[in-house]
Amino acid sequence: MHTPQKKTSGAEIEELIALLAKLPGLGPRSARRAALHLIKKREQLLLPLARALGEAAAKIEICKECGNIDTLQPCAICADPARDASLICVVEEVGDLWALERAGIVRSRYHVLGGTLSPLDGRGPDDLSIAKLVERAHAPEVREIILALNATVEGQSTAHYLAAELEGLPVRITKLARGVPVGGELDYLDEGTLAAAIKLRQPV
Amino acid sequence: MHTPQKKTSGAEIEELIALLAKLPGLGPRSARRAALHLIKKREQLLLPLARALGEAAAKIEICKECGNIDTLQPCAICADPARDASLICVVEEVGDLWALERAGIVRSRYHVLGGTLSPLDGRGPDDLSIAKLVERAHAPEVREIILALNATVEGQSTAHYLAAELEGLPVRITKLARGVPVGGELDYLDEGTLAAAIKLRQPV
Repeated sequence: MHTPQKKTSGAEIEELIALLAKLPGLGPRSARRAALHLIKKREQLLLPLARALGEAAAKIEICKECGNIDTLQPCAICADPARDASLICVVEEVGDLWALERAGIVRSRYHVLGGTLSPLDGRGPDDLSIAKLVERAHAPEVREIILALNATVEGQSTAHYLAAELEGLPVRITKLARGVPVGGELDYLDEGTLAAAIKLRQPV
Repeated sequence: MHTPQKKTSGAEIEELIALLAKLPGLGPRSARRAALHLIKKREQLLLPLARALGEAAAKIEICKECGNIDTLQPCAICADPARDASLICVVEEVGDLWALERAGIVRSRYHVLGGTLSPLDGRGPDDLSIAKLVERAHAPEVREIILALNATVEGQSTAHYLAAELEGLPVRITKLARGVPVGGELDYLDEGTLAAAIKLRQPV
């Protein structure tokens, strides 16, 4: 039931609930529960979170090179001499970069686009970090660019656009493999994934 | 997949994610998304939320009379002379008080127990605000106490305990009606609710 929110407590509490409700994953109801939980756990949670948010606001920046977020400028990944500078892994969002880093497989640099092209939502090439990617692709040390975009319609059409933009450079352009995910059960997979897994089948 | 969390970004970001993950409704994954969202919306969300949490920590108190949370001591409800002081509505948690206030039906005072009795979890009468309720029930103006506890096993056994504690006082002890909720479809209701709705049927 959507009834207008009545003021049941101090304006400070209402304000806190309204802000928490803007977080992805929290609705008005769970925001109220979160606010109550915070107020109950004043020392263990409320004060530390207030401090952590203040620190984040004061220290965290967007890396001017790759679009990652970090307390360093350029970010720790761009500044790391142990990283393979010949390889740039292009992702949609910082969350995708984190996912790849957690997997710990690729020791490349990254490039965060900031989303996908979406003419319907009015997001064109100028709204993404594409010009900067093309600039970075011209650096002599770059040998390969992995387009690690989501396997969605928007992700793949953005990948196509990027491949066209990067054409002609002496750089290998690659994309992530398609196939059955680890632990995947054929019965639950969509036809597109199964078709890709058959087409790209590997010798045992 | 539960892999150990690797440090993929500054310690400040990790700390923020760890704290957000402690909120009810947010897991490790949604906490990461929430942290990213906060960092992206620095001016609109991160800074206001940091400030709101600081204000909450500085100003919000638990009402010594009823257990509600507010920036006033006693809370605005306890201090409101327009409230019916003859009626105390007993609830488990502040969230239940808010739910009743949003409905705007009862203009009573409240009493927040702080949970339910649960011998298995080691929560006995001394862990709830029961002594204070009994003290309040002795006030000459109190005529009725509504036990508005959840219709769960714990809620109802706590209500029984409270009814026994309050026995002998010149005060009416009542509980919430049982029946078909508004919008409820019989086919989806449990047998206990249906039995109550039949037993307590009303003339049309």
